[in-house]
Amino acid sequence: MSAVKVWRATDYVRMPWKNGGGSTEEITRDAGEGLDGFGWRLSIADIAESGGFSSFAGYQRIITVLQGSGMVLTVDGEEQRGLLPLEPFAFKGESQVSCRLIAGPIRDFNLIYSPQRYQARLQWMDGTQRFFSDAQTVLVFSVADEVKVLGERLNRHDCLQVDGNVGLLDASITGRCCVIELTCESWLACDAGDSVTQ
Amino acid sequence: MSAVKVWRATDYVRMPWKNGGGSTEEITRDAGEGLDGFGWRLSIADIAESGGFSSFAGYQRIITVLQGSGMVLTVDGEEQRGLLPLEPFAFKGESQVSCRLIAGPIRDFNLIYSPQRYQARLQWMDGTQRFFSDAQTVLVFSVADEVKVLGERLNRHDCLQVDGNVGLLDASITGRCCVIELTCESWLACDAGDSVTQ
Repeated sequence: MSAVKVWRATDYVRMPWKNGGGSTEEITRDAGEGLDGFGWRLSIADIAESGGFSSFAGYQRIITVLQGSGMVLTVDGEEQRGLLPLEPFAFKGESQVSCRLIAGPIRDFNLIYSPQRYQARLQWMDGTQRFFSDAQTVLVFSVADEVKVLGERLNRHDCLQVDGNVGLLDASITGRCCVIELTCESWLACDAGDSVTQ
Repeated sequence: MSAVKVWRATDYVRMPWKNGGGSTEEITRDAGEGLDGFGWRLSIADIAESGGFSSFAGYQRIITVLQGSGMVLTVDGEEQRGLLPLEPFAFKGESQVSCRLIAGPIRDFNLIYSPQRYQARLQWMDGTQRFFSDAQTVLVFSVADEVKVLGERLNRHDCLQVDGNVGLLDASITGRCCVIELTCESWLACDAGDSVTQ
């Protein structure tokens, strides 16, 4: 049986980084607390100054600048092409990563997940799009004033979460957003995120 | 290690139906022969006259009209909304299905897969789209004069197939096409499609 939740941007809790270079708002995750124990996590980061990224060994990351001029990442010593708003970029959590802000602070959107525990998919969409998916969890993160999906209206940076999907979800979405789909690699792999009493 | 193949529409083999009401061109499949043994199959059908669909018990189907005015399906006694070109529709293979052609012959595109053996995803795309996917198999079926994907150019009804993807595929696609992504539910489930010698 699937469950639909809507996370409102006005409710996100902001956590300043220890180094003072920015802050993170967590949107949602599967399990665990703090920086540990999750199989996947969505968050928004405000980066105030150029600097290093935290390590998330064993995780895969996909980052997208939301607001600001953009940034240039250096990954394991190699400078990458500049990232402008809404251009996603994937990298390994264990890579040594630093960012150089192109012109002032930015805000970015982050998927971090364990490929051992989850199969993932991410796509930025615009206009009206429709897809069919067997994924167990579907997340829709809005970057428009209004995104319509599954009878819900999302404001900017709100996030809809469908959990426990079984069978083929038929989803129509209108408005600019990021769609993330996640499925457990095996039942064992995602037990930590299962709230069913053993 | 992933492998990329391109199936050319000019090479598809057309098989007339026994009842004379149409014909099918198979594009690609994972395993098996004829109507048996496959875990997933892509095909194009030409429907010359209104009539009944074959049963595929245990399979999930997604159909899309490619050419012609369209058709109205009746599924287990319930008439559905008319299907115009490029409007996908999902139904169970064991359903009793008949079609009524709106105005003359049509051509349609079919994904048939076993949800016990594969997790699937299907989306029609247009313009330039980019996505990241952990799916093992990614299929891109062109309905434009030119679709560009992974360095290949697809003509109308050509199909690109990526197999054995491990890790996160970063795909950019330009042109109108259908993207299908498939992943084995478990290694056991898809052994039939594995060409590795045991």
